[in-house]
Formats: sequence, structure tokens, C-alpha cells
Amino acid sequence: MIETNPNEIVIVKSETSKIGSVDFDNLIFGRVFTDHMFVCDYEDGKWQTPQIMPYQAMTIEPSARVFHYGQAVFEGMKAYKDDDGRIFLFRPDQNFNRINKSAARLAIPEFRKDFFFEGLEKLLKLDSDWIKPGVGNSMYIRPFVIATEPAISASPAMSYRFMIILSPAKAYYNEPVRVLFAEKYSRSADGGVGFAKAAGNYAAQFYPTSLAQKKGFQQIIWTDANTHEYLEEAGTMNIFFRVNDTLITAPNNDRILDGVTRKSVISLAKDLGIECEVRRVSVKEIKAAAIDGSLKEIFGAGTAAVISPVSAFEHAEEVYELEQLDNSYASLFKEKLMNIQHNISEDPHGWRYEVK
Amino acid sequence: MIETNPNEIVIVKSETSKIGSVDFDNLIFGRVFTDHMFVCDYEDGKWQTPQIMPYQAMTIEPSARVFHYGQAVFEGMKAYKDDDGRIFLFRPDQNFNRINKSAARLAIPEFRKDFFFEGLEKLLKLDSDWIKPGVGNSMYIRPFVIATEPAISASPAMSYRFMIILSPAKAYYNEPVRVLFAEKYSRSADGGVGFAKAAGNYAAQFYPTSLAQKKGFQQIIWTDANTHEYLEEAGTMNIFFRVNDTLITAPNNDRILDGVTRKSVISLAKDLGIECEVRRVSVKEIKAAAIDGSLKEIFGAGTAAVISPVSAFEHAEEVYELEQLDNSYASLFKEKLMNIQHNISEDPHGWRYEVK
Ligand SMILES: Cc1ncc(COP(=O)(O)O)c(C=O)c1O
Ligand SMILES: Cc1ncc(COP(=O)(O)O)c(C=O)c1O
Repeated sequence: MIETNPNEIVIVKSETSKIGSVDFDNLIFGRVFTDHMFVCDYEDGKWQTPQIMPYQAMTIEPSARVFHYGQAVFEGMKAYKDDDGRIFLFRPDQNFNRINKSAARLAIPEFRKDFFFEGLEKLLKLDSDWIKPGVGNSMYIRPFVIATEPAISASPAMSYRFMIILSPAKAYYNEPVRVLFAEKYSRSADGGVGFAKAAGNYAAQFYPTSLAQKKGFQQIIWTDANTHEYLEEAGTMNIFFRVNDTLITAPNNDRILDGVTRKSVISLAKDLGIECEVRRVSVKEIKAAAIDGSLKEIFGAGTAAVISPVSAFEHAEEVYELEQLDNSYASLFKEKLMNIQHNISEDPHGWRYEVK
Repeated sequence: MIETNPNEIVIVKSETSKIGSVDFDNLIFGRVFTDHMFVCDYEDGKWQTPQIMPYQAMTIEPSARVFHYGQAVFEGMKAYKDDDGRIFLFRPDQNFNRINKSAARLAIPEFRKDFFFEGLEKLLKLDSDWIKPGVGNSMYIRPFVIATEPAISASPAMSYRFMIILSPAKAYYNEPVRVLFAEKYSRSADGGVGFAKAAGNYAAQFYPTSLAQKKGFQQIIWTDANTHEYLEEAGTMNIFFRVNDTLITAPNNDRILDGVTRKSVISLAKDLGIECEVRRVSVKEIKAAAIDGSLKEIFGAGTAAVISPVSAFEHAEEVYELEQLDNSYASLFKEKLMNIQHNISEDPHGWRYEVK
């Protein structure tokens, strides 16, 4: 069934749905995909007619530059359904702007805003049955761009593919995590691509993270590559420290991802009268605060996990355990954010975006 | 036509050859591929039976981790044919070891040495007509590994594909290049993946390089990310400076690729009685040497270009032109290397490896 809609997105619907075979109560993050996907190719200097088509494997040349030079960027966002069946996105403009900022740093052409929003919304409506209502349920949305040109000279491609795929998700990282402060490895350099959601930034973290995991720590908190003295962010989350009743988080720079959850937490803190300092955070002060008892919490903030409390950190072979509070900032922010995302509470900042 | 050879590589030969349609005198680097390719999948914790098959596009899931997290490494090597039709590789053990070192850093399983050599040699013999004799002609060999597992959680994949594709090449970068010394952008961090041939390292250079190109410089010489005071390497070449009659090149560290051409130049310099200092090279000393006339040459060393002379560099908005010498070290090393590679001269170090 092929139809061209007024906005020129060509839609080819799947004949059957896989939805019946999915166990929505036991979803493993990022393994199940919905019935459709959005695809738009860049050729001859422009983005061609976008398509929504049945989710399927694609054909690509072994010489496609993405395989050789990692010319690829992505986004991570979520859609939520309320009890009336209405679908919401959370600050999607932020993700749209960020994928284009990432793209520019990787010499990838920027995507069109109309295609992004129309494509995403049509796709979500087509696969709307896959979005389950209820706090904790969501549809993880993965827009990404890859360099498809079949040529292995080390230079930017002339052709690209922009895609959006959807994966239903349950709350991710439920348990508090144990983290290691990086002392040897690093995630990104000054003047590098750390601020971009560039594919290569992630593979670079896998091996150091696997070493941490062998020691019993699920994640690494990256420090600045020059001195390893300042705490920056985790692999897929920005990081907040609560010392007494003040929150502290590292400032954005060209090494750190400008997280949507992070900036939302900073705004919510202001709303709630919680002091939030955006400044360099040293390993030394956090260790001192852990020792004198003023370090109350550490938590990560990111789309996938929303807010992820940290229960312990290690540095210089010393482990610091954190008592889990009943009324933590982490649970407060998590609840506030999820209630806005799921259309349960007021939305004073206008962060919700309804898919109509 | 399917045959299983004694070493268990399954070979499916192409029914026809594309070779008749190729203009070997006007090859653009990395665009034309031979009739066959080598493919080996990693599944269930091990490398499965390798295959040589007709060069063709492949089918891959949009959720394959390589697209999202850049989990991919590669190598670049060349085969040469002498006038008797014998085929040679140059120090292939170095490339085999290096792809596994790169793989380990990206949490990719190491490849098998027997599969690598048997696969590569069988492939080269099958596509032997594509390797043209004559100095300057070569077959560029691109082994690479990509994470194919269809799952978008940010962790190492459980399945991979190792491939080798072949692209006939003419001498690459013939003209001396104008370069810019990096002052703002950087290629890699201490504790990062700069020493690995990780896909993501290359895309990260495209945008800064495009800015350099707009100013009339083909390449960037990367400096250390911390201070930008020390010269490290170019995008696909290590760098040598000749001050009076002494060569200087940066030491290997975790930011710099341990180049095969670089280490061969260092050995050849020793053979020729040319002093070669492997030590940090500061921007300051090179600028001072350019001003007082003691800087005689700068050249890059890498498989693709062999030796690539630099005709000018820019730093702090100042351009320094280098006189092109008639009897340059660059041309001396290029000739020595190419004569060994093409089986024209003696091979005192045993660098040639005949494909039989
Ligand atoms: C490196 C990194 N830091 C932080 C975040 C959190 O960003 P956001 O809140 O926009 O999801 C992410 C994204 O998921 C990330 O990949
Ligand atoms: C970053 C980088 N530096 C240096 C080189 C040169 O290494 P080799 O001489 O082994 O080709 C390469 C590879 O081509 C490279 O990618």
C-alpha cells in the first residue's frame, strides 16, 4: 500500500504487524523495533523525498564510509502516551538542534526541520499501538545519520542516509549504579568531538567500561583528559553531585554532551528553590565531601535512564559508599520529569510537545 | 561455483569480471573495487567459517551497533606486483597485529591470524589480474571489522563482521602538500583511542580539515590536545621533520598511530647513517628552524602516500614556505621504500612477504 501524503513523505505500510510477538513487560533496551522506520537519503547535494517503510534490513556497500571512518551521528529521545492515548515528546526541538550540531562537527549535512518533525510524527502515529501508557513505559526514538557513499578515501561523504527507528522501552537502569572515576582512560579531548553525539565517542568507552565492570562498577564518570582532576559526565548521562543541599554539575564545553535532561534538572532546581552550581567539580572536593559526610547524592541524568542514582564511587583504589536517602533529590527530579513527560502534571516551561 | 578448500575458506567465484570496465591509468583512490571480497562473521563467541565471495553490497540491520556507536576498526596495506608477476605484501604482520590492537581497544574480538593470512592471500590470488606491475601501481587492501549486532544499547556487540576489500591504486598525493598546524581542534586525547585505527578517529578530522582546505591547506598536522605545543601526526600519515641533516619524529603514545611506514623510515635512516631523533617536536622549534633556515624538509609517511613532501605550513596565521630540494630525504626514502616494496632492490630487513 503506497500513498504520498501532502507533505511528500512516501509511506509504504507494513502488511502485517510484529506487535503480537512482543512481551511488553520484559523488554530489553534497544532490541525490539516497531513495524516501520523513517528513511531519507542525501544525494546530489540535497535531502531527497523521505520515506516511511516497513522496518527492515538495508542494503549497503562494504565501502560505505560509515564503516571505515565513523561518519555517523545520532540522537536519543522518547515518546510517552498518557491515559487518554495522547502522545507526547519532550523538548524535541533540543534533539533536532543537537543532531544538526553533531552533524556539522562531523562534516555531515544538516537535516531539514520539516522532514524531521513530519517524519517523526507520522512514524509515531503509524506505530502508535506500540507506545504503551503508564509511567515508566515509553517509546525510545533513535534518529541517526550515516555516510553511505561507497568510497574509502578519508574525506567526507557525498551521500548519507537519515533514519529514525523506534524501540519500545521500560524504565532503564532501575538499580542505583556503582561508578568509577576515570584516572587513566578518557572519553574526549579539548577541540575534539565529545560535545557531539558522534558514533565513535561511544565505542571508545566500551573497553574502559568493561574493565570497570570487571571490578564491579557499572559505569565510568569521565574526567578531563588533561589532568583527570575534574568530573565531567558518564557514558550516556550527565552527572550531578549534591553537597549538603546544593547541586553541582560540570559546565558544558566541547568535551561534554549538552544533555536535555541535565538542562531540565537545572531548570527544575531553580523552580524548586534548590541551589544549583554549574561549575567545574573536582575529584578532590567530592572525595572530601564523601569523607566529611556532606556529599549526600550523586546521580546521572539522561533520556534513557531519566535519573539514575549512584550508590558508590571508586577513585585511587578507594571505594566511597553513599547512603541511599528516602527523600532524595534524585527521586524528586525523576518524579517531576516523568510527570511532565507523561502529561500528569503541569508543564510550566512548555516542554511537552503533543504529536497530533 | 562453490568450493571448500583444505583450510576451510568457502570460495564462491564471480561469474564475470568488472576488470574490463576499469581505467587503470586514471584511478581515483578508493572508488573501484575488485571482483571479490573476504567475509568472516563472529557469532556465538567465535569467528565462523570465512568466505570469499563476489564483491557485492551487503544486508545489515539499521540497528547494527556500528551505525550507532562506531564500533569499527580497519587497516590499510598494499600489495605490489613485480615484472615477473610475483605478488608481495609489505610487513603484513604489522597490520595484522595492529588491527587486533585496535580491536582490543574498541572491545572487538581479535581476529585469527590463520584466517587473516589465508583469506588475504587467496583473495589477492583470485583478483591477481587487478594488481598491475610497475612502481607506483599497487593494490590497496582494506581489512576492517564492524559490529553487526542489531541492538542499540550502548555496549559492545555480540556479533561482528570482518571483511577485506581490495581497491587498485596509483600513487596517492603526488603533489607536495600545504599543511596547517592545529591550534584549536584535536584528533585524540590522552587515554583515548588515537593509537587505534578506530573508524571514529577519522570522521572527527573531516570538519577541521575542511576548514583548513578552505584556507588552502590540504592537511592538518595535529598537535597534542592539552597544549597544542607539540606536533604529532597528520590525518593518515606520521610526520618527519628534517632540521639540518637530522630527522625528528614524535614518539608513539596513546594518541598517535604506530605507523608501519614511519618505523620503516626510522630503520632506513639508521641503515643510511642519517641521524633520527624520536622525541617530542615543538611547534616553537620548527618555526624557529624555518626562520633560521635549518628546517630543510617536512614529510608525511603512510601506506597510501608512501612519502608525501610538505611545501608549506601555517601556524598562528603565519605561513612558512619550504624550498623543495632536489635531493630530498623525502624522495630518497620514497625510492628506497618503493624499490623494496616492488621487489626491485635488496630487502635486508625481510620486510617483503611473497603471496604464493
Ligand atoms: C555522552 C552523553 N551524555 C549525556 C547524555 C544525556 O543527554 P540527554 O539528557 O539529552 O539524553 C547522553 C545521551 O543520552 C550522552 O550520550
Ligand atoms: C592516523 C594515521 N597516522 C599514520 C598512518 C600511517 O600508518 P602506516 O604507515 O602504517 O600506513 C595512518 C595510516 O594510514 C593513519 O591513519
